[in-house]
Amino acid sequence: MSSISKRRESLIKSLYTRHGRKKHDLCICEGIRSCGDLFVSNPGLVEFIVASDALDMLLPDDKEIVRIPADEFKKLSATVSSQGILAVVKKPEFIHDIQPEDPFIVVLDGVADPGNFGTIVRTVRAAGLKELWYTAGGVDPFNDKAIRAAMASQFVIGLRRFENIQELLGELHRYGYNRVYRTDVKTGRNCFLESELFDKSAIIIGGEAHGAGEAGDAISLTIPMPGDEESLNAAQAATVIIFEYVRRLTS
Amino acid sequence: MSSISKRRESLIKSLYTRHGRKKHDLCICEGIRSCGDLFVSNPGLVEFIVASDALDMLLPDDKEIVRIPADEFKKLSATVSSQGILAVVKKPEFIHDIQPEDPFIVVLDGVADPGNFGTIVRTVRAAGLKELWYTAGGVDPFNDKAIRAAMASQFVIGLRRFENIQELLGELHRYGYNRVYRTDVKTGRNCFLESELFDKSAIIIGGEAHGAGEAGDAISLTIPMPGDEESLNAAQAATVIIFEYVRRLTS
Repeated sequence: MSSISKRRESLIKSLYTRHGRKKHDLCICEGIRSCGDLFVSNPGLVEFIVASDALDMLLPDDKEIVRIPADEFKKLSATVSSQGILAVVKKPEFIHDIQPEDPFIVVLDGVADPGNFGTIVRTVRAAGLKELWYTAGGVDPFNDKAIRAAMASQFVIGLRRFENIQELLGELHRYGYNRVYRTDVKTGRNCFLESELFDKSAIIIGGEAHGAGEAGDAISLTIPMPGDEESLNAAQAATVIIFEYVRRLTS
Repeated sequence: MSSISKRRESLIKSLYTRHGRKKHDLCICEGIRSCGDLFVSNPGLVEFIVASDALDMLLPDDKEIVRIPADEFKKLSATVSSQGILAVVKKPEFIHDIQPEDPFIVVLDGVADPGNFGTIVRTVRAAGLKELWYTAGGVDPFNDKAIRAAMASQFVIGLRRFENIQELLGELHRYGYNRVYRTDVKTGRNCFLESELFDKSAIIIGGEAHGAGEAGDAISLTIPMPGDEESLNAAQAATVIIFEYVRRLTS
């Protein structure tokens, strides 16, 4: 009977914690679509693959594959209805000291929900952008739930990490992104009418609890909301703005 | 020492299951913002409130409030870091047999993730729309996680529920919504260029796994994606389309 070693079992379990990911510099990518995407987009990061005996999916022939019974797989999985595949993956290097190519930079400041963070990574990629910048203090982008929500786009998009918003603003200016916007629920400029919104600019999306922090002389930016809802979810606000860019690009 | 009765404890636990919500016709609204919104928007639905002794929030004085110790509250809560308040709430009636007022109808067909469903309800409300239509077979809109993701907008927005897409299409036609769109990842009309998109129309958003089902002679609608991501998350696709409506309304 095939089995997984105790050492690897405890490695995988530790990678569901921030501490474990930091210690081993590894993370978990789970699910058929996410793993499938990873195997094509960045196979060099894959350390080994764990697959259920019941899995019917073409797997890379140059990677070590640990096949285990379906019920044993369930115990390793972080999902309720697992798809029978996960990969243990090296965390990609953060980007630094390279001039960005994107026309504007999406910045996440204090986004704490892994589903929101991951969804924004996936949306940034869908828009054809190459980078996402964020400040420490929110969620770990390599949290397994964030990876699932992103469909593993963390391994394709370049991430830049900063200790705080001041450090991040310094880097923006260094690379010539001098127009900084900050989302604000009520009193900013209308995002649909701001003609230079995507012109060597940065747009700061705040976290779920407190919105975007103070950021020097950032310009307040508002998404119009005709309804009586107080605010949009952080990932929805990011999506509206990112796809306003796509609309202008493609219309 | 204050406490909660065994009967109510087991009622609350059963309301975290679809079966329990159906049996009792009740659901759980948890969290400060969601409960705060509910107490203003639709207080008549509230059966009783359970609050932690540690909670510091103004509560309605015409509702029964069960105060319990914080550690006892934690056991009733569905969240990891609970905010110390939940309400047991009557499920609102579904809408039927009334002419809709919205210029277009957002339709969810097979959306199975409670976070996605709830986020879309919240976004529909933010856009000033009054209704959301959906087909059975996906998530229960009164799932506690869907209610948290919607910030309790289920108690404000009118929901219409249909057994299947055919029954739903029949009702659309009955009310004069004769232009039906169906989101399609690749080969449809560009949502940003479709001039009659919000003119007595309906837009079907498909579920996470299989997209929108077949729907007669629905027009395929595509959100342009310059990047190499395969598709957007269902809630992101809905948000792009709903806020394209807001953009046209406000620009």
